[in-house]
Amino acid sequence: MNRYQQALDLDAQDPLKHLQSRFFFGCDAPIYLDGNSLGMLPRDTVSHLQQVITRQWGERLIRSWNEGWYELSARLGSLLAPLIGAGEDEVIFSDSTTVNLYKLAFGALQIRPGRKKIVTDDLNFPTDIYILEGLARQMGREYRVELAGSRDGMTMDEQTLDSLIDTDTALVLLSHTAFKSGFLYDMESVTELARRKGALVLWDLSHSAGALPVRLNDAGADLAAGCSYKYLNGGPGAPAFLYVSSALQQQLPSPIWGWFSEADPFGFSLSYRPAAGIRKFLTGTPPVLSLSAVEPALKLLHEAGMDAIRTKSLKQTQFLLDTADELLVRLGCTVGTPREAHRRGSHISLRHPEAYRICRALINPAGDRQAVIPDFRESDTIRFGIAPLYTRFSDVCRAMERTAEIISTEEFARHSLDRDGVT
Amino acid sequence: MNRYQQALDLDAQDPLKHLQSRFFFGCDAPIYLDGNSLGMLPRDTVSHLQQVITRQWGERLIRSWNEGWYELSARLGSLLAPLIGAGEDEVIFSDSTTVNLYKLAFGALQIRPGRKKIVTDDLNFPTDIYILEGLARQMGREYRVELAGSRDGMTMDEQTLDSLIDTDTALVLLSHTAFKSGFLYDMESVTELARRKGALVLWDLSHSAGALPVRLNDAGADLAAGCSYKYLNGGPGAPAFLYVSSALQQQLPSPIWGWFSEADPFGFSLSYRPAAGIRKFLTGTPPVLSLSAVEPALKLLHEAGMDAIRTKSLKQTQFLLDTADELLVRLGCTVGTPREAHRRGSHISLRHPEAYRICRALINPAGDRQAVIPDFRESDTIRFGIAPLYTRFSDVCRAMERTAEIISTEEFARHSLDRDGVT
Repeated sequence: MNRYQQALDLDAQDPLKHLQSRFFFGCDAPIYLDGNSLGMLPRDTVSHLQQVITRQWGERLIRSWNEGWYELSARLGSLLAPLIGAGEDEVIFSDSTTVNLYKLAFGALQIRPGRKKIVTDDLNFPTDIYILEGLARQMGREYRVELAGSRDGMTMDEQTLDSLIDTDTALVLLSHTAFKSGFLYDMESVTELARRKGALVLWDLSHSAGALPVRLNDAGADLAAGCSYKYLNGGPGAPAFLYVSSALQQQLPSPIWGWFSEADPFGFSLSYRPAAGIRKFLTGTPPVLSLSAVEPALKLLHEAGMDAIRTKSLKQTQFLLDTADELLVRLGCTVGTPREAHRRGSHISLRHPEAYRICRALINPAGDRQAVIPDFRESDTIRFGIAPLYTRFSDVCRAMERTAEIISTEEFARHSLDRDGVT
Repeated sequence: MNRYQQALDLDAQDPLKHLQSRFFFGCDAPIYLDGNSLGMLPRDTVSHLQQVITRQWGERLIRSWNEGWYELSARLGSLLAPLIGAGEDEVIFSDSTTVNLYKLAFGALQIRPGRKKIVTDDLNFPTDIYILEGLARQMGREYRVELAGSRDGMTMDEQTLDSLIDTDTALVLLSHTAFKSGFLYDMESVTELARRKGALVLWDLSHSAGALPVRLNDAGADLAAGCSYKYLNGGPGAPAFLYVSSALQQQLPSPIWGWFSEADPFGFSLSYRPAAGIRKFLTGTPPVLSLSAVEPALKLLHEAGMDAIRTKSLKQTQFLLDTADELLVRLGCTVGTPREAHRRGSHISLRHPEAYRICRALINPAGDRQAVIPDFRESDTIRFGIAPLYTRFSDVCRAMERTAEIISTEEFARHSLDRDGVT
């Protein structure tokens, strides 16, 4: 049986196949393997936003704050909580991932006074590292950020990390799933090794939430944040979430004392009293239209179930690896993502010296070929994202075949090396 | 001629009357005098958002970042700039007002080292005061926030402010138009008196932008921020804007070093270099749906012109004052807003011991009376917002008549004193 027929069979047996039609596909829809950058549009979101815009904003106007908007950040937090293994009062939607990392990292440094070291790794997403650099600068000269060095920018040896965390370490900030390679940390063991030194861990779940079952409480996790525009399908730049374990909510301070974090925002007191619980980590008025789009998307994930999503994701990433081994390795591609299932998230990184131009050729094919959309990450990586709610095995197969065609025919040579895009 | 007939005549002569139909009115539309809390929905926004949702997100997906989204924050900043008297490279959309105030106030304290005092006033919106309290706490024990005391919570004597600003003052943060009373500061004279002592001024323009022509450059203003969900009609919780004068952009640091503020965000460098210019004050990925809604709304303001808006606003607030003098003063109402045109924004505050219950009765009328929507602010204030793009003189007249009816018949007594709402 050839590989494409095998893919079609796998699609036919897929217990989540009915969910694909719950997403919006326009005419000329590409093969979309970039849900790890921006999730697709759920059809329910279209009708929900229509209601939010014309009914809630247009007709109910300011009254909508009393009719659901005020509670929305917390309600969505409760809806997300079981998908990431948290208690429903431990998660809330607020700001961007960047601002949430800033708030939580600031708080962590305050409750670990005297410790001057912040540990992260060179696999981390740049904004995470930048936030820490800025915070160290602001905290004073003696503060420093140290980066654990990865193997080849793709995976991390836990020993390397362990040797960097010491009794001067206040905070460890890591991406649970690495953005470039899809490498997945063992949350429980890292949390444990940091705890042994008295350090807190802040997890960036941007590439994990909605992609695999995260078990924050089971791992004894302290702090986490992440975006909702990737595997959660919340829409472009959708508001982010944050998690503070119930054990830390009382003591952890926020640096940004906004009115939505006040005990009684509409009492208009002239002196700040922080709200009890997770609300303390809110700031100002949230962007309601973008926030509202998160709700139908989270409901779809509940409908599918995180375990079923992980099962399909692992089957699909394995299928991608197998196909790449067969078609692409002999064309000079190497695999950046760990082979072990428990060490990878839901995207696969393939490396090739011409990765940038191959990626341009996939996205902008000549003639009437269907576009394939993965994304490129400096300097030699193409990421193929598997979003089990809408990705088909046949999409994965076609993407690999098309990549092989581009490399073997040198079709990529038509494209410029200029980095003219921003993503 | 009776007052209602006068109102209809004024409506007929109104040079902006054609713009009312550019807003969305559902069936059972209330008389809406709360555009100072949440602006109405422009009809163009409905169709624009439809495009953003299904075409930009649904069909173009990640490619939309290269097709407009990445530039959107700056483009909207340039569009807003002339409406607030700023250069087009001095304004950008980002985060919430709260987070922007935090970033700019933090920056101001860094470039005024050694000065330990922050001045604001007791007319200011609570989030502004809270942000300063939090920042002072974080900066260290010697930092303090001092509040200039108003006359009766409604207006400020500039002498009082002047006497509080000294050579130990790093920053003065004021709401240009006071949220409760509509009192309007003279931006130029306050900026000048702060500058004489070497202090910077950060203006909260939330109740000014879109309500009256703000002249940041003419006033020599240093810093400003504000929301876009009031008179700018950008939608509930729409992203906020910030202004940093070109003279300060190079030296002012931001505390939140997010990837959107980096010189080359998609270079994914492991070390932060701030972007040149106003982009330095961005943080993370912006909420694109909410941000997109701001664009058609700003275009409507350009179409009307800020001078025409101010002319109509002053006529309407004067008409409201005249009507209140005739109908409401004898019923125990007093006016909280300054009578002088150059001292008021675009909302009028009426005070009455039963303000809360009167407000409830206006919003929730018995029988088939049309609802009137102003808002209530503790402890005795009803705010009536004039949004000249869609407010009619006849709306103002009916609102005053209805208020008189509620007070004179004691209809408010049907309502509870419990503060059950959040707005």
